[in-house]
Amino acid sequence: MALKIEPSLFPFFKPKGVMVVGVSQNPTKLGFGLARNLVQSGYSGAIHFVNPRGGTLLERPVYPTIAAVPDPVDLAVLLVPAAVTPQALAECGERGIQAAIIASGGFRETGTDGLALEDQCVQVARNYGIRLIGPNCIGLLDTHLPLDTTFLPPPGPTPGDVAFISHSGAICAAVIDWARGQGFGLSRLVSLGNQADVRETDVLVSVAADPYTRVITLYLEGVSDGRRFVRAATAVAREKPVLALKVGRYASGQKAVASHTGALAGSESAFEAAFRRAGVIRAETSEELFDWARTLAWCPLPKGPRVAVLTNAGGPAVTAADALEAQGLQLAELGAQTRQGLAEFLPAAASVGNPVDMLAGASPQDFNRALRLLLDDEQVDSVIVIFPPPPLYTAGGVARAIIPTIYAAQKPVLAAVLGERMIQEAVEYFRAARVVEYRFPERAAAALAVLWERAQFLTAVPGKPQRITDVHVDIAHQALRQQHEPGFLPPEVVNDLLAAYGIPVPSIALAETAVQAAQLADEMGYPVALKVASADIPHKSDVGGVRLNLLNGAQVQRAFDEIMTAVQVAVETAVPQPHIEGIHVQRMIPQGQEVIIGAVQDPQFGPLVMFGSGGVEVEGLQDVTFSLAPLTRAEAEEMLARTWAGRKLHGFRNIPAADREAVIDAILRLAQLAADFPQLQEIEINPLRVLEQGQGAFAVDGRARFG
Amino acid sequence: MALKIEPSLFPFFKPKGVMVVGVSQNPTKLGFGLARNLVQSGYSGAIHFVNPRGGTLLERPVYPTIAAVPDPVDLAVLLVPAAVTPQALAECGERGIQAAIIASGGFRETGTDGLALEDQCVQVARNYGIRLIGPNCIGLLDTHLPLDTTFLPPPGPTPGDVAFISHSGAICAAVIDWARGQGFGLSRLVSLGNQADVRETDVLVSVAADPYTRVITLYLEGVSDGRRFVRAATAVAREKPVLALKVGRYASGQKAVASHTGALAGSESAFEAAFRRAGVIRAETSEELFDWARTLAWCPLPKGPRVAVLTNAGGPAVTAADALEAQGLQLAELGAQTRQGLAEFLPAAASVGNPVDMLAGASPQDFNRALRLLLDDEQVDSVIVIFPPPPLYTAGGVARAIIPTIYAAQKPVLAAVLGERMIQEAVEYFRAARVVEYRFPERAAAALAVLWERAQFLTAVPGKPQRITDVHVDIAHQALRQQHEPGFLPPEVVNDLLAAYGIPVPSIALAETAVQAAQLADEMGYPVALKVASADIPHKSDVGGVRLNLLNGAQVQRAFDEIMTAVQVAVETAVPQPHIEGIHVQRMIPQGQEVIIGAVQDPQFGPLVMFGSGGVEVEGLQDVTFSLAPLTRAEAEEMLARTWAGRKLHGFRNIPAADREAVIDAILRLAQLAADFPQLQEIEINPLRVLEQGQGAFAVDGRARFG
Repeated sequence: MALKIEPSLFPFFKPKGVMVVGVSQNPTKLGFGLARNLVQSGYSGAIHFVNPRGGTLLERPVYPTIAAVPDPVDLAVLLVPAAVTPQALAECGERGIQAAIIASGGFRETGTDGLALEDQCVQVARNYGIRLIGPNCIGLLDTHLPLDTTFLPPPGPTPGDVAFISHSGAICAAVIDWARGQGFGLSRLVSLGNQADVRETDVLVSVAADPYTRVITLYLEGVSDGRRFVRAATAVAREKPVLALKVGRYASGQKAVASHTGALAGSESAFEAAFRRAGVIRAETSEELFDWARTLAWCPLPKGPRVAVLTNAGGPAVTAADALEAQGLQLAELGAQTRQGLAEFLPAAASVGNPVDMLAGASPQDFNRALRLLLDDEQVDSVIVIFPPPPLYTAGGVARAIIPTIYAAQKPVLAAVLGERMIQEAVEYFRAARVVEYRFPERAAAALAVLWERAQFLTAVPGKPQRITDVHVDIAHQALRQQHEPGFLPPEVVNDLLAAYGIPVPSIALAETAVQAAQLADEMGYPVALKVASADIPHKSDVGGVRLNLLNGAQVQRAFDEIMTAVQVAVETAVPQPHIEGIHVQRMIPQGQEVIIGAVQDPQFGPLVMFGSGGVEVEGLQDVTFSLAPLTRAEAEEMLARTWAGRKLHGFRNIPAADREAVIDAILRLAQLAADFPQLQEIEINPLRVLEQGQGAFAVDGRARFG
Repeated sequence: MALKIEPSLFPFFKPKGVMVVGVSQNPTKLGFGLARNLVQSGYSGAIHFVNPRGGTLLERPVYPTIAAVPDPVDLAVLLVPAAVTPQALAECGERGIQAAIIASGGFRETGTDGLALEDQCVQVARNYGIRLIGPNCIGLLDTHLPLDTTFLPPPGPTPGDVAFISHSGAICAAVIDWARGQGFGLSRLVSLGNQADVRETDVLVSVAADPYTRVITLYLEGVSDGRRFVRAATAVAREKPVLALKVGRYASGQKAVASHTGALAGSESAFEAAFRRAGVIRAETSEELFDWARTLAWCPLPKGPRVAVLTNAGGPAVTAADALEAQGLQLAELGAQTRQGLAEFLPAAASVGNPVDMLAGASPQDFNRALRLLLDDEQVDSVIVIFPPPPLYTAGGVARAIIPTIYAAQKPVLAAVLGERMIQEAVEYFRAARVVEYRFPERAAAALAVLWERAQFLTAVPGKPQRITDVHVDIAHQALRQQHEPGFLPPEVVNDLLAAYGIPVPSIALAETAVQAAQLADEMGYPVALKVASADIPHKSDVGGVRLNLLNGAQVQRAFDEIMTAVQVAVETAVPQPHIEGIHVQRMIPQGQEVIIGAVQDPQFGPLVMFGSGGVEVEGLQDVTFSLAPLTRAEAEEMLARTWAGRKLHGFRNIPAADREAVIDAILRLAQLAADFPQLQEIEINPLRVLEQGQGAFAVDGRARFG
């Protein structure tokens, strides 16, 4: 997918003329701030002000009506009371304007009256073909065009290469100030507000097309259309790094769930899976978001995970080494030539291994010489330079000495300059030269890990989920067609669905009497299992409704009676009373490793597939992982790699290796089933019993909820 | 244990006179810096300089020899070449000086020659009764005495309440500068260097006794005597918070281990357990160390985990709420009165639930009024105030308005002032008033969680491990007395040890023939298990050496032969060839939950006990936790609470509740055994089978290594 801006959004990002409706003469009012920012931004198009009182503002005429504003004008910024906004919007439409930012609040966020006003705005916009940003937003700014339609107090951001797109308007002023304080500039900033029309995905694509933007940062409270977001973000992330801070992590409300998969699949799992699919890098904190953005904007990507650490201070180098290993990077094994080169000029007590500790007396020239040697080493993919204020030289001197080398390098070099006030000169030099610097070695290591993650993402060949063709969609359709009410599907139906999609299931049949059960078992062959047949009892073993390893007809008959007795207790105490249809007789599958595979329909991202350690302890062990469905074979492989249940399939101690291929196949097929039938709210195989290599995997117990 | 400074350390922390040996007239030399810092520190005792060249320095005489220095002088700071240091130290001894800081490098850290010089220094010091700090250190400083024996470039730290004790000298300059930049002062700073004599534990106790020190921070590369450190830190932590950054986490080398416990018990597990025992709060990064130190120094402790969030910005408040929940804190449920009070003056669109979002227009007075209401609410234990630069007011104005309220509050109030440059005024106000402030809400949440952790630590009644009296130390002694060589103990011996310490073991006997095995089984009762008897085969099931659930004599005889055949293969391929003594016949214990309990001897901290999910997957699941042994009942309870294996003992789904008491008892007994017999390098019960409540727990399989 090529990145294409929706043409109707052009006026937001390259307007010919901007009109501010609701300007104010009072410098403490937002309507003044907006006018001032627009003029001071240096925007080169036409600027027009509107206020019924007329007059002049900032040496420009103030028009009394929207209709009176002369050409050119293709973007309106409305800062008028919510109640009159629909009318103002209509006047914009009459005037031929097709893009409007509604900065005012008082809409959906205030309750039902506000929501009605917002709906009215959307209706007016639709009638006139107007695209809307907001309401209840800060607006947008572009430091390169330049354009500033916000009312934030000055100074605005310095021009830079990091774009910021935000669901929170309140955070925008802080972000501009953070960026300034941390010495990087912004390219564009867009506050989305209530998203009555234009949403995060629209803006993401538009901003990605901006040549000045090298990295896109997102502050998300959710996404409006999960699958659309994933498609767009996938395309964008191949071009430019996308970083997201998703907030509202723990705020997910309670919901009724019936399966382990449902219980574990909060919206967080869906976001994790969606970001992973799209190649969006997820920051856990605001600090990480901007730490990483700077690094991605300014550093070349490393070719590998091998890091050299260069320092004049042993302690912080150990801290860095710890952090690098914790982040999945490696300390590079330095080449003999490098070590020899270092030994030539460093004191005998210095360490020429990695970390290279030149000791406290190291001069700026020593730093530079050592850095060159490390960069020339083929076994080094990146370098972190760490220095506290040196006792005999200035930190600024070290920065000046190494900047030209960092400039010329094809490998990323990150600096950790420890301290605060005594190192300000070094920090200023680095920032001016676009060398990333941090105050703490751990943060440099974390940022470097993100660079390496990005490098791996770009070299991996992106796969596309391939449709599995030998599935019987028609049979599955037929099985589900008989289902009219929401609820659990009978196990025969679940088995039919799984079988239709090529997932092996053991034969099963329903018995209504003990004698019939024994007959069915005789036909299938022993051992068999008996399970109470009731769509109303999700966890059958909890109520004594399951008996395993029955070896002959007599055992089967006895077990039938015992289950019926045990279940009777459950039936009598449960509200509503479950309906018991009989008892299922099932051929038992040989022992093997047991895993869980499940799928749920996520309200935002659609079908999600889960894999992990099965059994009854699923929720306790939490050894599970999710992926969007359908998925590629490579993604299924990664699910195995992320879980102990998956890694164990290779064999461990006296647990023999199991049929991994069969597991991957089952994951792909269940994902396809969930994607094909969104009416399957949840479907779960627990356990999927995995036999030895080449022997396959069987869905011993399946469960599904229709809704 | 009362905090008592070792009297021989008095001269370091309250010297009557200080002598600097090796001063320099050259301002670029460390010998000049040291003299300058000592004079500029304002130290009120006598200051003397020594250099063979004599003359004057900083308007003071320079004595040509140590002997020539007049009284009073009880602390020497040596900055002379390593080779002449032993001699200088001897001269100090002759002069009657009994405390010396060796700042010079060139000792142990440089190799064998340096090590020899260091040993010489220790010998000289011992002869004269001199206590040594260093060599290869920065020295120490005390901002309140005041005293500065470092050669770091000025400015030194501002006086404050955080002490810093460090194994890394190189980090000290950065720490002083960080503290300055983050607006807090230091009370004392001690650089330990090579620790030829005085160690981290000595200094910890001395610094804890300093009335100006409210919080102690440690930068540790290890500890010299683990148990002594734990004893001292336990006593200190009850008085003052101790924070530690332990580096070298991933640097642990390979070692040979035989049990799961051994494989999982790296030195990190030991440090975790030791810090937990002592109440030392572990920081993961340098940034956390100082973030938390400030908060612990300046905030009252919360009475509970219920946090109110007050803000003018919705987005960051959600971020804060996420972070609070992730940290184990709770969003307070505000009282009706509080909500009503807020509603009285806030706009209708504001949120008077928690987080309280007053919207962007909130004034400094609004912040203060809302903060008072929240602090008055009995359901609120602490408050985080979050604000980006407000659009209509200054951040400084908000700070000024709320500082008096924060001052008067008995509950902690933390500020997250978002931004960087536009909020400097607010930051300066807060720092001057000792209100903790962070740039990011997540960091405020993490710091608050540490405060709550500290509050809980102080309210918990500290227990002391009680010796279990009904153990037969003599029998265990006897069992081990026959053991002469390092290696695995025979299972009978392991069983004897466990039984002697009151841990139930199933009866077991050795059979040399199939017929004998069947006879033994007849005596014990069925079912039985057979296990190959060989101290050389640690993982018996890996080689087909285990058969379970044998129900009669015929099965036992057949299994005996099959094991012998299977094991024969292993015997033939293994180097060295394992010795097979026969086959153990063991009465089998009924089904139940299975856990692992193990103990190892840690080289630094002595006996460590482990508990967690057992079976063969121990290392894969990593659901284990460690504690120093012996331990209290409460600590054993906490081990259960920290693991899924432990939580599951309460019952889960159709897994019935198990005999938790029996597990706790077994943990305490195994810990006691490991503590009583340090010659038991590793001992492990895997599985300990836990029956239903009141039915006990049995060591089904035990293994121990003697060394």
